[in-house]
Amino acid sequence: MAPPLEGSADALFPDLPRGPLQAYRARASFCWKELALFLEGEDTLRLKKTIFSALENDPLFALPRGGRLSLEKYRELNFRRCKWILERSLVRVEDMVQSPLSTLTLITCLGMYDWSLAMKVLLHLLIFGFAIYNSGSERHLEYLPKIFNMEIFGCFAVTEVSHGSNIKGIRTTAHYDPATEEFVLHSPDFEAAKFWVGNMGKTATHAVVFAQLYTPGGHCHGPHAFVVQIRDPRTLLPMPGVMVGDIGEKLGLNGVDNGFAMFHKVRIPRQALLNRTGNVTPEGTYVTRIKDTRQRFGESLSNLSLGRATIVAMSIVNLKLAVSIALRFSATRCQFGPPGEAEIPVLEYQLQQWRLLPYLATVFALDHFSKWLFLNMVEFQQGCMGTDRSPRQVELGREIHALVSAAKPLASWMVQRGIQECREACGGHGYLAVNRLGDLRNDNDPSCTYEGDNNVLLQQTSSYLLSLLEDRGQGGTRLESPLGTVDFLETYPDILGQRFTCSSVEGCLDPSAPLAAYEWLVCYLLRESAQKLDREKRSGSGDFEARNNSQVYHCRSLALAFLELTAVRSFHEHVHQPSVPPPLRAVLQRLSALYALWSLNQHTALLYRGGYFADEQPGKMIENAILGLCSQLKDDAIALVDVIAPPDFVLGSPIARADGELYKHMWATVLQESGVLERPSWWPEFSAKTHTGSLNSKL
Amino acid sequence: MAPPLEGSADALFPDLPRGPLQAYRARASFCWKELALFLEGEDTLRLKKTIFSALENDPLFALPRGGRLSLEKYRELNFRRCKWILERSLVRVEDMVQSPLSTLTLITCLGMYDWSLAMKVLLHLLIFGFAIYNSGSERHLEYLPKIFNMEIFGCFAVTEVSHGSNIKGIRTTAHYDPATEEFVLHSPDFEAAKFWVGNMGKTATHAVVFAQLYTPGGHCHGPHAFVVQIRDPRTLLPMPGVMVGDIGEKLGLNGVDNGFAMFHKVRIPRQALLNRTGNVTPEGTYVTRIKDTRQRFGESLSNLSLGRATIVAMSIVNLKLAVSIALRFSATRCQFGPPGEAEIPVLEYQLQQWRLLPYLATVFALDHFSKWLFLNMVEFQQGCMGTDRSPRQVELGREIHALVSAAKPLASWMVQRGIQECREACGGHGYLAVNRLGDLRNDNDPSCTYEGDNNVLLQQTSSYLLSLLEDRGQGGTRLESPLGTVDFLETYPDILGQRFTCSSVEGCLDPSAPLAAYEWLVCYLLRESAQKLDREKRSGSGDFEARNNSQVYHCRSLALAFLELTAVRSFHEHVHQPSVPPPLRAVLQRLSALYALWSLNQHTALLYRGGYFADEQPGKMIENAILGLCSQLKDDAIALVDVIAPPDFVLGSPIARADGELYKHMWATVLQESGVLERPSWWPEFSAKTHTGSLNSKL
Repeated sequence: MAPPLEGSADALFPDLPRGPLQAYRARASFCWKELALFLEGEDTLRLKKTIFSALENDPLFALPRGGRLSLEKYRELNFRRCKWILERSLVRVEDMVQSPLSTLTLITCLGMYDWSLAMKVLLHLLIFGFAIYNSGSERHLEYLPKIFNMEIFGCFAVTEVSHGSNIKGIRTTAHYDPATEEFVLHSPDFEAAKFWVGNMGKTATHAVVFAQLYTPGGHCHGPHAFVVQIRDPRTLLPMPGVMVGDIGEKLGLNGVDNGFAMFHKVRIPRQALLNRTGNVTPEGTYVTRIKDTRQRFGESLSNLSLGRATIVAMSIVNLKLAVSIALRFSATRCQFGPPGEAEIPVLEYQLQQWRLLPYLATVFALDHFSKWLFLNMVEFQQGCMGTDRSPRQVELGREIHALVSAAKPLASWMVQRGIQECREACGGHGYLAVNRLGDLRNDNDPSCTYEGDNNVLLQQTSSYLLSLLEDRGQGGTRLESPLGTVDFLETYPDILGQRFTCSSVEGCLDPSAPLAAYEWLVCYLLRESAQKLDREKRSGSGDFEARNNSQVYHCRSLALAFLELTAVRSFHEHVHQPSVPPPLRAVLQRLSALYALWSLNQHTALLYRGGYFADEQPGKMIENAILGLCSQLKDDAIALVDVIAPPDFVLGSPIARADGELYKHMWATVLQESGVLERPSWWPEFSAKTHTGSLNSKL
Repeated sequence: MAPPLEGSADALFPDLPRGPLQAYRARASFCWKELALFLEGEDTLRLKKTIFSALENDPLFALPRGGRLSLEKYRELNFRRCKWILERSLVRVEDMVQSPLSTLTLITCLGMYDWSLAMKVLLHLLIFGFAIYNSGSERHLEYLPKIFNMEIFGCFAVTEVSHGSNIKGIRTTAHYDPATEEFVLHSPDFEAAKFWVGNMGKTATHAVVFAQLYTPGGHCHGPHAFVVQIRDPRTLLPMPGVMVGDIGEKLGLNGVDNGFAMFHKVRIPRQALLNRTGNVTPEGTYVTRIKDTRQRFGESLSNLSLGRATIVAMSIVNLKLAVSIALRFSATRCQFGPPGEAEIPVLEYQLQQWRLLPYLATVFALDHFSKWLFLNMVEFQQGCMGTDRSPRQVELGREIHALVSAAKPLASWMVQRGIQECREACGGHGYLAVNRLGDLRNDNDPSCTYEGDNNVLLQQTSSYLLSLLEDRGQGGTRLESPLGTVDFLETYPDILGQRFTCSSVEGCLDPSAPLAAYEWLVCYLLRESAQKLDREKRSGSGDFEARNNSQVYHCRSLALAFLELTAVRSFHEHVHQPSVPPPLRAVLQRLSALYALWSLNQHTALLYRGGYFADEQPGKMIENAILGLCSQLKDDAIALVDVIAPPDFVLGSPIARADGELYKHMWATVLQESGVLERPSWWPEFSAKTHTGSLNSKL
């Protein structure tokens, strides 16, 4: 093991307790503290430590979290925790603007503790607050201090009962009345009720509400956002004309009160319109700098993109927690062994390594990619807030939108599968609620749906790629995008002519091998998708139908493969840069190679079908390379978990404490549950004689 | 649509209410009642109707089920429901012996209502009760009436905290003391506590406990089963020396009280030993007809096999419920549409069809297969209970064990993925707890783990196949198994030489195409696995290590592919038999083809790699065939759901009622929740001033 860090940086890290995990820690090829410092930087580590300590030191956070509470109690606790966070000014306006990454760090740290808490803060501050900041104008700035000191509490209401994906189709209306200079907000029927809105169920006093804007004469200008007061902050009772309530229990995130609202001719001032993209004059004339309704609506929803990038980061954190739990368990849980010998840790089994280590590699790869994406997104948003209307800014917007539209599906699905694998890899112990894998799965699950259904979102990415191919076909300028993720398409025909050339397992470990294969794969799927669309159109389908019939096996696969390539390339470049400390190079390059090859291996069928692979060897070599990497990373696994796992208090999983005393912590937890050894309160029921029917005679 | 049935059979079926689903029902190619009658038979349909009506007509079953109750309340309700079922003699001893399928029908009907109820009944009657019946002798028959009238309540205790998969390694001991003719049952430490035992947490009075049997002189005879009283039925207080408690909340099945127990030198009479496979004389001599310890232990656990076959059936039921919910939702949920036209049901999108219809086909295919497997298993068990020790009986035992060891993994995994897909396919509405997809996912999840971890179990199947190959290598008799599932291996070398010969999509729809491809695939994986094991051994690995290093990409894939082939063949033969009513042939054959091709398509990479497929066409044709079948089955989907869905009351999902009034039922349910429009009880918390910290200064 490499020597520990020296000096002040070392104070950032806890000394890990001794115990059964020591055996694996001693075999690690690198110093986990050095890797944490390299990946996160001192500032972030310090911020995380501060947040975690704050939580651990207040009894409010020692009360139960998650599913073991009644809905009412959980919401109360979660609200009080949210207030606690805001009162301590853990996020300030300046931070949100100047250091968005630290805001993201706060959200993910809270999520490591409990996603309901993170989500409640996120919905209020970043979704509601940022919507006002981003879509409003000077007249709306008065809301910001009230948001930060929680005089008001917010939610963001777009979707309706019968309109989720197709939000342009929402049916809530806002008719402008010049006589009083007010909008009249109205829900025509139950199906047009706002629904699913986080924080709306019990706690929000204000909502950003999307409604079809009408000016006198019946002119509809499409969906626009309005700030609407829905409850009185002093009483939490609804405002007149607003029917607002709670949609009830969900599969997870039950600390958050998702709600519904119907508006019965509710009058709101003209100034309630968030008017960055379009405005109504006192007389009732609609004015806008963006003539195209679609584009205008797109801009008014641009903070959904930031939401999507945040979801990517949140998903990765879920996978961090899940693999940390499963790997610490696997390194201390012994089962079977060679005849006559002691039982061995289940992590020693190749099968267990293969189930878990690729997800560990995924954590490191996608964590890097998601930060990269988030920072680029923030830069783009800052450009939008300013006056940047340059062609580069427009192109950057398209590229980022395409990336995030596939990144959210890729990350949320990958993590959903990964958590399930971790749950199963812990056997029965993974099915025990206290060990937390269930909460992680349930809290991650909506990421596949909200801020855009995964399958619907992927169409944005494939459309972008197909449009590039079309532009390319028309000749002209070189194909270059601001972030360079599609530049390889410049040599599209050449790439399609390439073939796999590795002749050994070692060759597959050379990073150029999976990158080249992925570039071929994306080009192949791009060509197949374009041809499929073309065939559909020639056979008489309209645009709508042609696109719908080209998703399965074509555009959908294209979008996912392109995003995988981008993530593989991004992490690959990161771990091969000269600034990587030499003692960390080997382990990082193995993680990069494992993520790349394991992801690529899902596409072996296409690589063969399209002729990139020939004969048995390529498929076999990749499998052998994956298993070899798993075997090499096995002894580093626990040290890698030490890099990503939060403190025991935050991780909150008895089978995964840093000391590895699996059974002691499990027993302590089981015995501490209330009434564990008591008979049930309804024990007389057991022997009570009750009315005996004779249903059987009817059978 | 075909004309409805005539006469008495029709009285078995409800008249489905009119409503938005009518449009799809009218387009169905067959009469759903006729299909239900063909697949289930009149007796089963009658039994189901009786059970469902009984539940619907008692207020005990109108109370809430599932996760929306506190642990204590849920267990009470579940216990009372279990007692209600037993009091009505819905299962009698005669049924269990004479008509095992009706017992399975009862369990699955209860499961459709709530799996916690089904599981509680199953654990008591079939796992505990059958263990005594199956492993005991005449002296234990006295327990049976007490089980059926619930004077006693039972559980089955094998696993311990630190021994789940490796149950031969359990450490609870039973030392025989000839002086008092008693066994002394003892748990040496916390890690040896019985753990995970269903019904043990709060309600069981008796347990079948596995312990290492020792006779005087310290001779250990391996694990044996004992009947042990753990609580007093009059008080539900533990018996002296028994520490018994509840392990706490799980990810699902929380109506069942899983528990732990430690025994402190608990004395039980000699007769407590379930002595079918081995006995101890009053003097302390161990006697047995089975000399081999492993074989003896295997026989004493033979009812685990029946448990596994039951789990297969239970998993399929979960998928029935999930696809019913997702398909009724998809047929009534409209979103987007061609420009300027009305929105269309999401079921009209190819992508949605491709996500759901293969799982619908899987339901029909695996439902048939699981019944076939269950009935063969019962026949085998009956042989074991009798005196059948014929070579055929031994071979049948091996074959059935191999089949069920892969059937449980295949079914539980397939269903876990399927439920997740259904959840996502319903978007946000699928994430709302009342719609039940979360409970289904959580209740199905342990099927991947209990009665044998899926990955561990698969090794039994691959070992069986590899041993057949070895026998074959030694020449001699023709390769034939009692159920014929491995007979095709007789022509193993010929099959390996075959290639895919279809030249059109239509060719792929010929059932011989996927069957031939699957036979080639199994032979290929068998050869690859045997060679891999051989290489491992040549390189110096011991048996244990060689086997462990041959699972990934080899033995594990082999076991799953073999089981898929068996299920595909079984359903294929069923739907092509002459007794299938002509109006049902088309739809059944499409379901069979879709299941076969969709399953096979997971293995395209190997089919190419091994040279069975060449050039682009085979892969493309199979994809096109799958999409074509989805399109053909789309209009039959709702009628197929009518065949498999239980009555609305039992299905219990507002978005999936038979009338298709999606939004009306959702609203009714949301508004009926307690306190939906009320402010929270802790509303003053909102504006209360609390201590304001200054954590931020530390940041």
